[in-house]
Amino acid sequence: MAETRRVHVRSLDLKRGQIELVHGSGGKAMSQLIEELFVPAFDNPWLAELNDQARFDAPSGRMVMATDSHVVSPLFFPGGDIGSLAVHGTINDVAMSGARPLYLSTTFILEEGFALADLRRVVDSMATASREAGVPVIAGDTKVVERGKGDGLFVTTTGIGMVPGGVDVSAGNAVPGDHVLVSGPLGDHGVAIMSLRENLSFGTTIVSDSAALHGLVAAMVEHVPRVHCMRDPTRGGLAAALNEVAARSSVGINLEEAHIPVRPQVRAACELLGLDPLYVACEGRLVAICAAEDSSTLLATMRGHPLGREAAIVGEVIEDPNHFVEMKTEFGGRRMVDWLTGDQLPRIC
Amino acid sequence: MAETRRVHVRSLDLKRGQIELVHGSGGKAMSQLIEELFVPAFDNPWLAELNDQARFDAPSGRMVMATDSHVVSPLFFPGGDIGSLAVHGTINDVAMSGARPLYLSTTFILEEGFALADLRRVVDSMATASREAGVPVIAGDTKVVERGKGDGLFVTTTGIGMVPGGVDVSAGNAVPGDHVLVSGPLGDHGVAIMSLRENLSFGTTIVSDSAALHGLVAAMVEHVPRVHCMRDPTRGGLAAALNEVAARSSVGINLEEAHIPVRPQVRAACELLGLDPLYVACEGRLVAICAAEDSSTLLATMRGHPLGREAAIVGEVIEDPNHFVEMKTEFGGRRMVDWLTGDQLPRIC
Repeated sequence: MAETRRVHVRSLDLKRGQIELVHGSGGKAMSQLIEELFVPAFDNPWLAELNDQARFDAPSGRMVMATDSHVVSPLFFPGGDIGSLAVHGTINDVAMSGARPLYLSTTFILEEGFALADLRRVVDSMATASREAGVPVIAGDTKVVERGKGDGLFVTTTGIGMVPGGVDVSAGNAVPGDHVLVSGPLGDHGVAIMSLRENLSFGTTIVSDSAALHGLVAAMVEHVPRVHCMRDPTRGGLAAALNEVAARSSVGINLEEAHIPVRPQVRAACELLGLDPLYVACEGRLVAICAAEDSSTLLATMRGHPLGREAAIVGEVIEDPNHFVEMKTEFGGRRMVDWLTGDQLPRIC
Repeated sequence: MAETRRVHVRSLDLKRGQIELVHGSGGKAMSQLIEELFVPAFDNPWLAELNDQARFDAPSGRMVMATDSHVVSPLFFPGGDIGSLAVHGTINDVAMSGARPLYLSTTFILEEGFALADLRRVVDSMATASREAGVPVIAGDTKVVERGKGDGLFVTTTGIGMVPGGVDVSAGNAVPGDHVLVSGPLGDHGVAIMSLRENLSFGTTIVSDSAALHGLVAAMVEHVPRVHCMRDPTRGGLAAALNEVAARSSVGINLEEAHIPVRPQVRAACELLGLDPLYVACEGRLVAICAAEDSSTLLATMRGHPLGREAAIVGEVIEDPNHFVEMKTEFGGRRMVDWLTGDQLPRIC
């Protein structure tokens, strides 16, 4: 009888089980991981088709694609984990073009010995973030590497979205006279991770700002479709985001330190850690650049959204053949805000 | 003078340089890696925009999305490397829906200390594979992990494509009476990697079959738009691909061992390594299932394409409430071709 030769495979032990090499080898164990963990968690008809690719209908128009690997350490932190971060991060990269994110894909690179309970926690968190954002995870892949050849779990997410007609947001679109806005206080994510890693306590726990910004962006492009640039200041912080814009748009940028929102406890932590909040990653903030005549409308729109309540106008775009980003300090001096050249914060996202 | 405070950064040393944590930190070094290595290699207008997302125009219709992480070890092997493999693998996953692949994105998870010369070799190989396939890499991301927390380089690719009208290819579409075809000899990729890893020599070098199959697929769906299923038998080999189809379509499958093409040196290597060619990964082969009346047209179409010259009809779909895949052996017996339950070949792709 054929049946008697069929090897019986137990259900995944999601409480005490660990990832083994066999979970990445294309056989029954991998299939089990997909069918018992990933498909139920993400729970959508695209993924449930179990093809090597997900199929969906798309309207014609301008699309965008963005991708990010996530190697944040530790995997779990106040305000999120690698799973929610991976969903938010890629949704935000898509949204920074003014696009409405449509779908996500994800891959997991797992280290042999990784606890299935931790994997489930991450996957559940991704699924929740994806559901809350209304952007389903429709395709995925799993690989396993030997113990010592990875670091628990790396998550890569890719997103696609549609850009509304008339919207043209790009790092190359800033022009002198434009205003620079941020959606909220800087540095919460980076400081949350570093505080945890360095085992620092500041009376209150600093919580990551990790959040999906596409709802805020939709409101912004609805009210100011001509917004010129948007960036989420992740690795390298506001400084990197603005230096990229300055270089791509061939302009200079002047910031006003007094107007840049930074929480007091984040500022205190930065002083202790030797960090500069301008270089610290956010995962739920954006910087936007628009014409001066649009900036009060854009600011009001941002402040009217839960994720932009503390938005502020923090600077302006100027002509500058050197494409420098500079800042007027609170003491009236001037300071260069150059690219970060050292490695301020490894594995922050 | 602001200029004097600007830190001078040397060009990347692509001959003797190594990846440092700073290459992943969002500052100047990461920007350099992107501008001096990735952008020139992939050389396309989408990537050159240097936004956090790539923008493109898409026609309306049925789209597909597929994603894969690649952790193959060693990184370089006869017939390819992790870069060409990542391009081919994702193009193939997209193509197995009958779709025309449009765009790819990629991420690199780099281990501190990885040689920039090796990274360049991989990136150049990806760029060549992408150009030859006519599928540009339009978005990317780079992360760096500390020494000992990765394994040189992991590459994740995501692809999107458009399905031609009237084409509906899915693992759930097989019906009893259908014929099963393969596009060429099985197991070359897996045996090439294992021979290298085990330092085996078989007189001739066994070369990976890694190839982009979308041209072959385009010819197939042009001549037989009603083709029911396509899969590329990667991890888990033909056995995994057909067990997935059997389960998804609620059918059984009967194979004829005598008709399954396997190169003599691959068969010899498998015997030495204790492997079964039915379970060994290919990276440039596909298995297709179509109605019996279409199979001679499909076979002729496949044989007329350079990547399908050794195509063969290897079995048929039958009614079977157990959804078993079975094989009539060359000696006239019958054998179950079940899911792989052990870990035959770790890190093959």
